[in-house]
Amino acid sequence: MTGADDPRTGLPSLEPMDRTARIDRLRAALGRWGEGGVDALVVHKPANIRWLTGFTGSNGLLLVTDDAVVAITDGRYQDQIAGELAGAGVDATVEITITDIGRVLGHHLGSRRRLGVEAHHVTWRQRDDLADWLPGADLVPLDKPLEGLRRDKDDGERSRLARAAAIADAALAQVLPRLATRPTERQMARALENAMFDLGADALSFDTIVAAGPNSALPHARPTDRVIEPEDLVVIDFGAAVDGYGSDMTRTFVAGGEPTAEQQRLWDAVREAQAAGVAAVADGAAERSIDEACRSVLVGHGLGDAFTHSTGHAIGLEIHEDPILSARAVGILRAGYVVTVEPGVYVPGVGGVRIEDSVIVGNGGCQPITHSPKRLAPLPA
Amino acid sequence: MTGADDPRTGLPSLEPMDRTARIDRLRAALGRWGEGGVDALVVHKPANIRWLTGFTGSNGLLLVTDDAVVAITDGRYQDQIAGELAGAGVDATVEITITDIGRVLGHHLGSRRRLGVEAHHVTWRQRDDLADWLPGADLVPLDKPLEGLRRDKDDGERSRLARAAAIADAALAQVLPRLATRPTERQMARALENAMFDLGADALSFDTIVAAGPNSALPHARPTDRVIEPEDLVVIDFGAAVDGYGSDMTRTFVAGGEPTAEQQRLWDAVREAQAAGVAAVADGAAERSIDEACRSVLVGHGLGDAFTHSTGHAIGLEIHEDPILSARAVGILRAGYVVTVEPGVYVPGVGGVRIEDSVIVGNGGCQPITHSPKRLAPLPA
Repeated sequence: MTGADDPRTGLPSLEPMDRTARIDRLRAALGRWGEGGVDALVVHKPANIRWLTGFTGSNGLLLVTDDAVVAITDGRYQDQIAGELAGAGVDATVEITITDIGRVLGHHLGSRRRLGVEAHHVTWRQRDDLADWLPGADLVPLDKPLEGLRRDKDDGERSRLARAAAIADAALAQVLPRLATRPTERQMARALENAMFDLGADALSFDTIVAAGPNSALPHARPTDRVIEPEDLVVIDFGAAVDGYGSDMTRTFVAGGEPTAEQQRLWDAVREAQAAGVAAVADGAAERSIDEACRSVLVGHGLGDAFTHSTGHAIGLEIHEDPILSARAVGILRAGYVVTVEPGVYVPGVGGVRIEDSVIVGNGGCQPITHSPKRLAPLPA
Repeated sequence: MTGADDPRTGLPSLEPMDRTARIDRLRAALGRWGEGGVDALVVHKPANIRWLTGFTGSNGLLLVTDDAVVAITDGRYQDQIAGELAGAGVDATVEITITDIGRVLGHHLGSRRRLGVEAHHVTWRQRDDLADWLPGADLVPLDKPLEGLRRDKDDGERSRLARAAAIADAALAQVLPRLATRPTERQMARALENAMFDLGADALSFDTIVAAGPNSALPHARPTDRVIEPEDLVVIDFGAAVDGYGSDMTRTFVAGGEPTAEQQRLWDAVREAQAAGVAAVADGAAERSIDEACRSVLVGHGLGDAFTHSTGHAIGLEIHEDPILSARAVGILRAGYVVTVEPGVYVPGVGGVRIEDSVIVGNGGCQPITHSPKRLAPLPA
């Protein structure tokens, strides 16, 4: 699709992604996985199959060896998989079967013995099936092997995340004036979603959150038929997806534009915490230090107990990718990761405030891809 | 919410569901699961947790013993889980922890040894964690224990599925005239989705399919920016969800209302096959006989190879529930199941036709809950 502009938006098309490089990275890693290396990897998780091959079907299995990529799916996806693999420039053998998966895997595995398996995704039953099908193989449990590689986003991925975030920014700007017109939470969410689709989103990153008044005190609220009243705190957490890559941003407003002193105090504290978190993001920073930066600000404001979740997560083909930026995180951020910073406080009876940006980790700092203004009172009161 | 009418639609509110009866059914089944019975069940799958308790969070774990129900989740869901359990009338102990799950499980398990585990859902890693946490327990792998109980829908579930199907019917009637106005597939899908939300849907059952022209030959197509041309076959497969229960219906049209002879031939064959499938649904029928009924009609029309998927599936809290109505199905349909009948043919270059209804299995027949008219040419040409 390179060259032609997007028919809905007129924006330039995105450069194709280099999936050959991803398969090369996987092959280079086989030797260091599973204490002694593996000879091949069987991939069950759809997001990982999509990342490697471009195939977006809901049912599939991928075997990657040193010299072959074999994609197995069922008859529903026969034409789709051929088209998607060709579009992604991936040279793979396609096998269409439901009943003969074990034989197909065994054939392509040949004399290789050590087969890496996604132990964090494959079910107990699927593991037993693999063991039955491949009695000569050693199944080696691996913990998120491809998710490890996927932390470092390549150019194609970062450009898609940035495009998705720009669509979300534009959509929020379009629909924000409706906040003062007493819509329901659902109506506000649908308006935002329709605007994102009109602006070029392929999908939503996740179910849009519009949580007003007491509902804003629920970190993972879903939109209801509650009318948004002028005095409500309103948490809006949403994202667009482009080519599978989903953005993530949260803003909190007072619907009628006249915050109370308590609303303003909560918002200012979260704003300060969020800025401290973003300022801590850089290549080489401990993942846990981002959480510490946010949490210490909120503790200083006496709001430590009101911050009931972790500070952020990476985004990509999934909305919650590794690393998770929590107090228990043990890794180091690296340039190229794309992560959210989203502290929040939740006070039953009063409401909640969350502010979130998505940022690309760089050397000496980070670059936000979400740019919507941060204002508690966005509208003329 | 009993008593008050739905604020969006004015429809009477649905009766609450009796989750106590479901927990009783689970407890009654413990003794027959896992060759010798189990003393308790640990539930990981979100849809099963929702079915038993009403909790809709994305992270949770449920332990059910003969005398206790213990729900474990993280701090994000602390208020939500309390509210949802109370709303569902479920008497459960709530434990909020991320790091201490093993100790909490061990405490409530007490001296019970045989712990049933959802082997079709729990990952290899989760199984190993359970084994580490509970060295005194025997982990017993169970294959879809709760999905087995969930086949038989109770009154509350059937009324929600019927409500969802009625919303989808009304939405299709509203937006169908737009087919002739050359919308894109995406625009048509969004119009349908917005109509469902306006008519009372809480969510979509699944990603709406609007597949026109050559795209209609892909059974699991996603809407694109392709303009729907008057001569296109258009497959529309969609559903609304009410209280988590999602409907499922497919209709196929010629956008401009003037089918070619070949389009009419394909449509008539699928219509005949679908009617034969619906006629075969009844309490006591072999699940595979529904697939046979549809498939034999299409084989008779020389279209056997063009029918590349199975004939149907049950619906409920998930869009694809057991039983799956395929040629390999081995079970028997029972009154109270709610299943789809959806044969289709897919001819590369010409397009595809699929027709689908959802029906409640009864004695001596079945009762459709999807009622949209089946017409290839729905509009004045």
